[in-house]
Amino acid sequence: MNTLDVQTSTNTYRVYIGSNLRKNLTNYLPKSYKNVMVITDSEIEKHYLQDVIEGFPADTKVSFSVVPNGEASKSSEQYFNLLTNAIENGLDRKSLIVALGGGMIGDLAGFVAATFMRGIDYVQVPTSILAHDSSVGGKVAINHPEGKNLIGSFFPPQAVVYDVDTLFTLPQREIRSGYAEVVKHGLISDNSFFEEVVATDLTTDLKPEVLTRHLQKGIAVKAKIVENDEKESNERKFLNFGHTLAHALEAELGYGKLTHGEAVAIGMLFAIRVSNKFYQTQLPYQRLYQWLETNNYPLTLPRIDVNVLVNRMKKDKKSENAKVQMVLLREVGNPTLEQVNDEELNSLLEQFLGELVNH
Amino acid sequence: MNTLDVQTSTNTYRVYIGSNLRKNLTNYLPKSYKNVMVITDSEIEKHYLQDVIEGFPADTKVSFSVVPNGEASKSSEQYFNLLTNAIENGLDRKSLIVALGGGMIGDLAGFVAATFMRGIDYVQVPTSILAHDSSVGGKVAINHPEGKNLIGSFFPPQAVVYDVDTLFTLPQREIRSGYAEVVKHGLISDNSFFEEVVATDLTTDLKPEVLTRHLQKGIAVKAKIVENDEKESNERKFLNFGHTLAHALEAELGYGKLTHGEAVAIGMLFAIRVSNKFYQTQLPYQRLYQWLETNNYPLTLPRIDVNVLVNRMKKDKKSENAKVQMVLLREVGNPTLEQVNDEELNSLLEQFLGELVNH
Repeated sequence: MNTLDVQTSTNTYRVYIGSNLRKNLTNYLPKSYKNVMVITDSEIEKHYLQDVIEGFPADTKVSFSVVPNGEASKSSEQYFNLLTNAIENGLDRKSLIVALGGGMIGDLAGFVAATFMRGIDYVQVPTSILAHDSSVGGKVAINHPEGKNLIGSFFPPQAVVYDVDTLFTLPQREIRSGYAEVVKHGLISDNSFFEEVVATDLTTDLKPEVLTRHLQKGIAVKAKIVENDEKESNERKFLNFGHTLAHALEAELGYGKLTHGEAVAIGMLFAIRVSNKFYQTQLPYQRLYQWLETNNYPLTLPRIDVNVLVNRMKKDKKSENAKVQMVLLREVGNPTLEQVNDEELNSLLEQFLGELVNH
Repeated sequence: MNTLDVQTSTNTYRVYIGSNLRKNLTNYLPKSYKNVMVITDSEIEKHYLQDVIEGFPADTKVSFSVVPNGEASKSSEQYFNLLTNAIENGLDRKSLIVALGGGMIGDLAGFVAATFMRGIDYVQVPTSILAHDSSVGGKVAINHPEGKNLIGSFFPPQAVVYDVDTLFTLPQREIRSGYAEVVKHGLISDNSFFEEVVATDLTTDLKPEVLTRHLQKGIAVKAKIVENDEKESNERKFLNFGHTLAHALEAELGYGKLTHGEAVAIGMLFAIRVSNKFYQTQLPYQRLYQWLETNNYPLTLPRIDVNVLVNRMKKDKKSENAKVQMVLLREVGNPTLEQVNDEELNSLLEQFLGELVNH
């Protein structure tokens, strides 16, 4: 088992990465709780809910609440239902919420914990590769029909317990989705990490030691950044590399049509394209494109009105004063935050989307 | 004008108390904002909204959103509407929300600010006496059908701008409601402050200098406590003196039947009754009862099932492990937090309610 500590303004929490951890969560909690509510989704429930519940001692009251699988559950309706469940299950300020699932569950259950009785403890138990990103850093949120994660807080967990056993049964699509964020962590931190990742074939069996190493490296990149800038005034924004277009695409196509990672993959290609133009440089667009293609990332899109997308990008939380801000790269490992003017953005996006439609 | 600084774990904000402040809010803000949304209610809108809007410079975009007057607006529906308005009005992470109104508006608009894009700046502009309590301390929340303030955060404002001019036109009922919290600040801090307050006749014209002095003293009591215990692990709970029964009464009778302060007044009488029994002491029950009666506080209640009330008290955020916790007084100025067992609580409440029903 590997561990890593993340320091926040209000606490320090430990990230555990290892095998079989879900069956003994209490070993990784900083204290004991009398009343615990596990929040999970309809897919994860089938595989791991029982393991988690049975791991608590007999004198702990453990209840659970299951939401439908999929990004659509990060809604205000599910959020309020879960708060109602928490009340019905008798949770109080000393109780614990367990977020058992992928990024959707982490965000949703974390926001419930952040706002139930003004904030109670929770622990992230990620079950997807994608969640190596979202489970660390304390960002929790639900979606608004007008945009992803528009309603949320910064609220760090008490621990992140990453049981890698839950990752080997993931469908290919989920592995792809998660690896987009691993690639991102490579691109914004270190060329050798990027090269290592894009030398990995996801379509054949992914080796446990390779996956674990990539997750550890990815989490370390993320943890270092969020420690320096918890509330996202500066550096933390770099983690949104590829996300400005990704969020707009997800919202425009309807959440769930593309997985988050698939949208980020396309967003990163576009961000590289913009970076090449902005800095007159030659980032590895083709290297990334080919790896994405080899690993069956969807690289075609329906026709979308560019203006509609740009308007969505302006509604992104990172936008300021109605200008689109994007994370760009001067070179691999050297991210920057730039305002991109509407005209240039429209023109580059028009061309980029044209290529993906025609491809 | 008087000022007072409140230090939190994340910022220090200033409380301004004075005349005519609403017309020049920008003078009291720590920085300038390009996009401002004022949130107010249908009553306050008529009197003060225009003053606030006109006080911003011409190059600031100022929008507003009005919710119906009354506690019922602290609902999930209004909360989501306001978030939607914030998006429609183009607010971003550098924008400002102005909470113009009483405690309901402060709590609601504050929770919108706390969770819009994971938290944006807001300023409290209280227009009620009651809000001298709620506007300081960073507690923001909305109600759940099962209980008051069950959904919320700790999220300090950038400033509190208290324009006392807005207080002299308040109806008697609002003055009564607000003064209950002033009395509370006296009871938990200092007997001479308590005596000073209960020597004041609220039914004749309240003098500006008296009101201002009481507000300053009340805010100072509150500020000192929240600085020591922002997240309510200990001392801050003392501010809930009278509130355990008050919240249960408000929920049981329907929010708005009793004003919050009227419910707190009854709750304080009960807390004194319990304290007298618990500590075998003689707190000024009659002194408070007579002052409340003289000043026309409602001191009769419909018949309510004691068990139903006790169950509501157990759902209070302060309850732990399904026991009722109450703030009691060893003596005036010396509050304590005690678990009261069900049997004793039932018996004392039965007797207390019997007196109020028969009165």
